[in-house]
Amino acid sequence: MTYCVGLLLDAGMVLLSDTRTNAGLDNISTYKKMFTFERPGERVITVMTAGSLSVTQTTIAQLREAIDDPEATADQSIMLAPTMLKVAEIIGATLARVRSSINAKMEMSQVSTSASMIVAGQRQDGAMRMFLVYPEGNFIEATEDTPFLQIGEHKYGKPILDRVVRMSTSLDDAKKAVLLSMDSTLRSNLSVGMPLDLAVIRKGALCLGETTRIEAQDPQFMAMSQAWSDVLRDGFSEIQI
Amino acid sequence: MTYCVGLLLDAGMVLLSDTRTNAGLDNISTYKKMFTFERPGERVITVMTAGSLSVTQTTIAQLREAIDDPEATADQSIMLAPTMLKVAEIIGATLARVRSSINAKMEMSQVSTSASMIVAGQRQDGAMRMFLVYPEGNFIEATEDTPFLQIGEHKYGKPILDRVVRMSTSLDDAKKAVLLSMDSTLRSNLSVGMPLDLAVIRKGALCLGETTRIEAQDPQFMAMSQAWSDVLRDGFSEIQI
Repeated sequence: MTYCVGLLLDAGMVLLSDTRTNAGLDNISTYKKMFTFERPGERVITVMTAGSLSVTQTTIAQLREAIDDPEATADQSIMLAPTMLKVAEIIGATLARVRSSINAKMEMSQVSTSASMIVAGQRQDGAMRMFLVYPEGNFIEATEDTPFLQIGEHKYGKPILDRVVRMSTSLDDAKKAVLLSMDSTLRSNLSVGMPLDLAVIRKGALCLGETTRIEAQDPQFMAMSQAWSDVLRDGFSEIQI
Repeated sequence: MTYCVGLLLDAGMVLLSDTRTNAGLDNISTYKKMFTFERPGERVITVMTAGSLSVTQTTIAQLREAIDDPEATADQSIMLAPTMLKVAEIIGATLARVRSSINAKMEMSQVSTSASMIVAGQRQDGAMRMFLVYPEGNFIEATEDTPFLQIGEHKYGKPILDRVVRMSTSLDDAKKAVLLSMDSTLRSNLSVGMPLDLAVIRKGALCLGETTRIEAQDPQFMAMSQAWSDVLRDGFSEIQI
């Protein structure tokens, strides 16, 4: 499985993905699940993926082909699309097409593939927008009421987001929130694994700001994880019932 | 859905279940999911249930019929079974039989029912044992390495258990742990709801000790929930990244 989370805040967008891919428990690999497309100053789009690797890789490859195709129209290339809504539509349509073509091949084995994506971005003169694209190609959008979207193993890390994330949360606090959300998931589910990819897109910057690959032995992440354990353990012993 | 959790500790067993049952989101009811069978001083057995209400109610009813049947053998009545392992086998076999009989009726509608149970108990001269019975009737047992079992919506509340529950945890800390685990689940998932049923079976007591129904507005539970929110919020702001 996978865990990816995206936060849409007043100050910008914060995105975090793990990198574990597995075909069964005995076949584990590391694959990047975060992809950025940008023309600095004009648009920045980040896509995070969960689900069947054959579906997500082919979808990203087809999106890239359309970007590189000099004859592609604004209906085909996410770098030409006039709005972020159109970007989400192109990605949704590509995902649904790839998935249905792969599923047609797999019919014989009665296996079906699935995948979902988080699409976050901003265009010149446009607002920051973040979408969760479903396997069928339809999508929902993050709003003020629910300023975060998750795909993959989302349940372990949801309680902390429910408690602390608001639109007004600062980017630093947001980074902390997604990392702690990931930390809980990593501890409870083997199918989510380090290293992590963290990206920040500041409002109006129209380019990818900070991007960090956090490795398994990253001292800063380990210290944060340990500090959070201490908070929970100490807090737990202090609480009266 | 449902969330039930059971802890098997050196000092005893702690069990907690919610009471929400739903057929779709527009049909929500309250049903007890914790059932105790005891002959004080000889044996105590507590069963918690998750899944299709028609399956779990029929299973519990059939277990009760066997208990009340004066001709039932030690292979049929959980109150006559010579070991807790046999109790788990009887419950597993009853669950699998009920489920397959109900599924046969539902074949036409292409709907299938499922249910799982946590069985915890102790017999005179026997050890405390706790089992998770799967829909097919097979089961696993809690051990020193993993002293807790969960059924239903188990993911939201697993991180706190992973962090604080050990065999040596005191019964008071164990109550706190399962209540906080439930609190996280209640906040993040609508299909789990108050009131809660909490039970404690002390080691060697051979009877149900404390049993508490915790109502939605229970001041003690609300205070604990608020205190935990404060711990998380304060701890969150203190942590450096």
